[in-house]
Amino acid sequence: MNTDGDLHLVLSLSCPDRPGIVSAVAGLLAEHGGNITESQQFGDPSTGLFFMRVQVQTGAPREELEAALAELAGRFEMTWHLDVVGRPLRTLVLVSKAAHCLADLGYRQRNDRLPIDVVGVVSNHTVLEDLARFYDYDFHHVPVTADTKAQAEARLLELVEEQDVELVVLARYMQVLSDDLCRRLEGRVINIHHSFLPSFKGARPYAQAHARGVKLIGATAHYVTADLDEGPIIEQDVERVDHGDDEREMVALGEDVERRVLARAVRWHAEHRVLRDGARTVIFR
Amino acid sequence: MNTDGDLHLVLSLSCPDRPGIVSAVAGLLAEHGGNITESQQFGDPSTGLFFMRVQVQTGAPREELEAALAELAGRFEMTWHLDVVGRPLRTLVLVSKAAHCLADLGYRQRNDRLPIDVVGVVSNHTVLEDLARFYDYDFHHVPVTADTKAQAEARLLELVEEQDVELVVLARYMQVLSDDLCRRLEGRVINIHHSFLPSFKGARPYAQAHARGVKLIGATAHYVTADLDEGPIIEQDVERVDHGDDEREMVALGEDVERRVLARAVRWHAEHRVLRDGARTVIFR
Amino acid sequence: MNTDGDLHLVLSLSCPDRPGIVSAVAGLLAEHGGNITESQQFGDPSTGLFFMRVQVQTGAPREELEAALAELAGRFEMTWHLDVVGRPLRTLVLVSKAAHCLADLGYRQRNDRLPIDVVGVVSNHTVLEDLARFYDYDFHHVPVTADTKAQAEARLLELVEEQDVELVVLARYMQVLSDDLCRRLEGRVINIHHSFLPSFKGARPYAQAHARGVKLIGATAHYVTADLDEGPIIEQDVERVDHGDDEREMVALGEDVERRVLARAVRWHAEHRVLRDGARTVIFR
Amino acid sequence: MNTDGDLHLVLSLSCPDRPGIVSAVAGLLAEHGGNITESQQFGDPSTGLFFMRVQVQTGAPREELEAALAELAGRFEMTWHLDVVGRPLRTLVLVSKAAHCLADLGYRQRNDRLPIDVVGVVSNHTVLEDLARFYDYDFHHVPVTADTKAQAEARLLELVEEQDVELVVLARYMQVLSDDLCRRLEGRVINIHHSFLPSFKGARPYAQAHARGVKLIGATAHYVTADLDEGPIIEQDVERVDHGDDEREMVALGEDVERRVLARAVRWHAEHRVLRDGARTVIFR
Repeated sequence: MNTDGDLHLVLSLSCPDRPGIVSAVAGLLAEHGGNITESQQFGDPSTGLFFMRVQVQTGAPREELEAALAELAGRFEMTWHLDVVGRPLRTLVLVSKAAHCLADLGYRQRNDRLPIDVVGVVSNHTVLEDLARFYDYDFHHVPVTADTKAQAEARLLELVEEQDVELVVLARYMQVLSDDLCRRLEGRVINIHHSFLPSFKGARPYAQAHARGVKLIGATAHYVTADLDEGPIIEQDVERVDHGDDEREMVALGEDVERRVLARAVRWHAEHRVLRDGARTVIFR
Repeated sequence: MNTDGDLHLVLSLSCPDRPGIVSAVAGLLAEHGGNITESQQFGDPSTGLFFMRVQVQTGAPREELEAALAELAGRFEMTWHLDVVGRPLRTLVLVSKAAHCLADLGYRQRNDRLPIDVVGVVSNHTVLEDLARFYDYDFHHVPVTADTKAQAEARLLELVEEQDVELVVLARYMQVLSDDLCRRLEGRVINIHHSFLPSFKGARPYAQAHARGVKLIGATAHYVTADLDEGPIIEQDVERVDHGDDEREMVALGEDVERRVLARAVRWHAEHRVLRDGARTVIFR
Repeated sequence: MNTDGDLHLVLSLSCPDRPGIVSAVAGLLAEHGGNITESQQFGDPSTGLFFMRVQVQTGAPREELEAALAELAGRFEMTWHLDVVGRPLRTLVLVSKAAHCLADLGYRQRNDRLPIDVVGVVSNHTVLEDLARFYDYDFHHVPVTADTKAQAEARLLELVEEQDVELVVLARYMQVLSDDLCRRLEGRVINIHHSFLPSFKGARPYAQAHARGVKLIGATAHYVTADLDEGPIIEQDVERVDHGDDEREMVALGEDVERRVLARAVRWHAEHRVLRDGARTVIFR
Repeated sequence: MNTDGDLHLVLSLSCPDRPGIVSAVAGLLAEHGGNITESQQFGDPSTGLFFMRVQVQTGAPREELEAALAELAGRFEMTWHLDVVGRPLRTLVLVSKAAHCLADLGYRQRNDRLPIDVVGVVSNHTVLEDLARFYDYDFHHVPVTADTKAQAEARLLELVEEQDVELVVLARYMQVLSDDLCRRLEGRVINIHHSFLPSFKGARPYAQAHARGVKLIGATAHYVTADLDEGPIIEQDVERVDHGDDEREMVALGEDVERRVLARAVRWHAEHRVLRDGARTVIFR
């Protein structure tokens, strides 16, 4: 039950699993006048970790709640994050030449389907400049060659810092980020890979898929880590193909899966529904 | 985090929505040594109702917990149910001549995929007697004609009472239950309808689907109410068909959807994951 | 096997079913130096009609082939259509305020995923003018009120004639076409309805779907006939929803299904893969 | 259009692609009084091969047609197969302990959903003997140890020969066939692998899938070759899982996909709809 005028907050947390976490959190929120409007939890026996996401309506000042949570977090060794429900995440989108993911993210953001604030579009090419401008996004052309890769990444980091970027989306950006950049931005970079991972890692996955004769093609949105195509998976989906679909047609069919999978992953991340659980993710939909 | 030796209970409840329900329930469980291992909730603004399902591990006696819950339920006007996690529901399966749903339920029950205890199979025909006996289910032949319908239903009710039946599954039982029987067993009867409701209510839905030229056929598992094919929907799914599929082929393809949808609905019901929300259902998967 | 320099044609036809049609067509094509590169057929016992679609590479003049086909068509009472493979269809897109279908059709057309030539966008509002112009489509604002409906339709027909329009796409155009216009353009107008027909005909289908508590929502692309929402279905698809999705969220989820279903229907139609079979369609994918 | 009393035959063929194949085949069939009731074809530019499947109704003697086809096949270097539509394939099913695939194949075969004649069930265990006998299938217990593997395979081959077995189905048979046996039976053995190949080859794919944190699990039916899990894929499908599904639950969910995928592959093979195209398959559905 929502009460107008109150803060609507989302709390996500993880900690070593042990009895009493739910009632401790629920109790704390109740003490500070909080009314829980949505709550999910999960204990993973394989990692011994506990995960929770709570949406709470409260009349108490946010600072008061944060202080109480900090105390509780200490006791339970919690990693936690508190945010306002629906606050758009400051997002930088990286693209190369393929338009479908940017067109889709732009459409969704513009039509209030995606709680992100696109603070810039970066590309190593210029073909998508028009599209970015159509959505009123700042466009940055940052070319990348073997020689200029370090400079390009420095420019990226600069943009991330200048713009207080909270999320970087690789929307079919055809450059591999350096290990160092991956580590610096870990947990804040989502990539869309155009295959059903772990099948067909690396380059030209649709060519690989065609050669192997698979009957479904897929796409995978995952957090980027230093291990290429090995980061924790957020979302996957597939589309049926048949013997008549050559690589070119698979590419076309794949675009639909890619943009759909990426949009879901970005939305769930921006709504604080994705929690890291070792090499996996917990998704509180 | 599970602790061996304790009771593992599942509590499901609904009540008018208002602040403080989650923390009241979580607090009560904590007071009685309960550790919440799974918890889901939902407030429906359109009906003003609040729903919750909690799995809790506890060392306290069940009676103690029940007494405390009864007190709380009074305060919040709650409808609630407490059960042991995984306890098989005493289930009566009604069939006619089509084997696919019974074969599938039997397979799943026998292989521990479905927490039900099939206390009997009732049919207005005898063709499925062998199949029932293969799964060691008691088989009751209860023929139904226009003249004997009342007697047949009396026999059904007798079985329900004798066997303490908690759930009746209409697994392609081709008889319409009387309004009176529907009311007496309301909330305890699940039917599988061989269409994507509300499309194609009534008889021969695949013939209707073929005539209309739909490109997907579906199945719907729902609670039975006095309004034929209008009860709250528990689960639905679809399968693709094309112009080459005539009614006969749709029937064959449909069997796969029907058995899959029915099995999910029965499992969720038996695990106390389905709560009635007016004409709809809340499913805590 | 394709041979460069030749014409690549697509022939689609239907006629009363009887022995010898396939070999008559294949023989005729062979006589005129045709090499069949793709061929599909279907005989519908329920309507007694036979359908065929052939792609053929030929060095013969198109006129020669057409003359021969006309003769054959007379003998078999065929309805037939011959076209160049891949020729874009002259298409008029009608919209109101919702952007998702136009944005998607535009993206696909621009990126060679859809063999249509958008000769104009017509809207009873102006909010999508920018989007139309971004794709370099002519935009026509044709307001519709109860009083001006006849004029608006006259303007539509004028555009259809001036621009030699072969296909009209109702891409969430929220006006009902008059019976007369439906009849004049029959077979050339594709509509996307935001429900899984025949469920939830008419207005606000997502509100109806929410009220009924369905577990999947869908969309239907169909030819427009004078019977509202009753025209032959070309394509349908669904998306899963749950109890937490209210009408607003269903609308958002539904957009993805709508644009996907509409794009497929338009592509198949433009590739001459859709043949009318009474109240149904044959789709040669 | 079917004509009663005639033979209904299915012809499947492949050959190097070149102009004129379709009209040559259609012409030959017409010359021998054949009426084509279903026909599909595909030319694969990547292998240069052409594939065709035709169903034909004919009053001519089968021998006459075969002689004509043999002559044509010589001219076009065709591999071809002629059979009676719907004739059940003599099938041997190999199982270990998991019941779901055998239960499903048995159900479908018994209910005329699968054109196979199960001439025997072989298992290295005895737990499925009851199930095999319920469907009136001969059951052969052929234990396999490292020492007796050669003997066991000899017994298998003996059964294949004694029973004129046309198709061997590995319905979750947990033994790897020797290279030699794979080669002898090539093209006649279908396996169901419990992952979405090429992901998670080898043992315990669900454990691998859980460890990698995938969001969909799958199953793959493929022809068995000497390269383990590398044979041409016939069919694949997937099911959604989430973070709450551990390996045990994935196994349970996976059973549904496995049996569904295997049943489709067996049906298509038995209906001569699957043609080998190098490392891939052409499926004429």
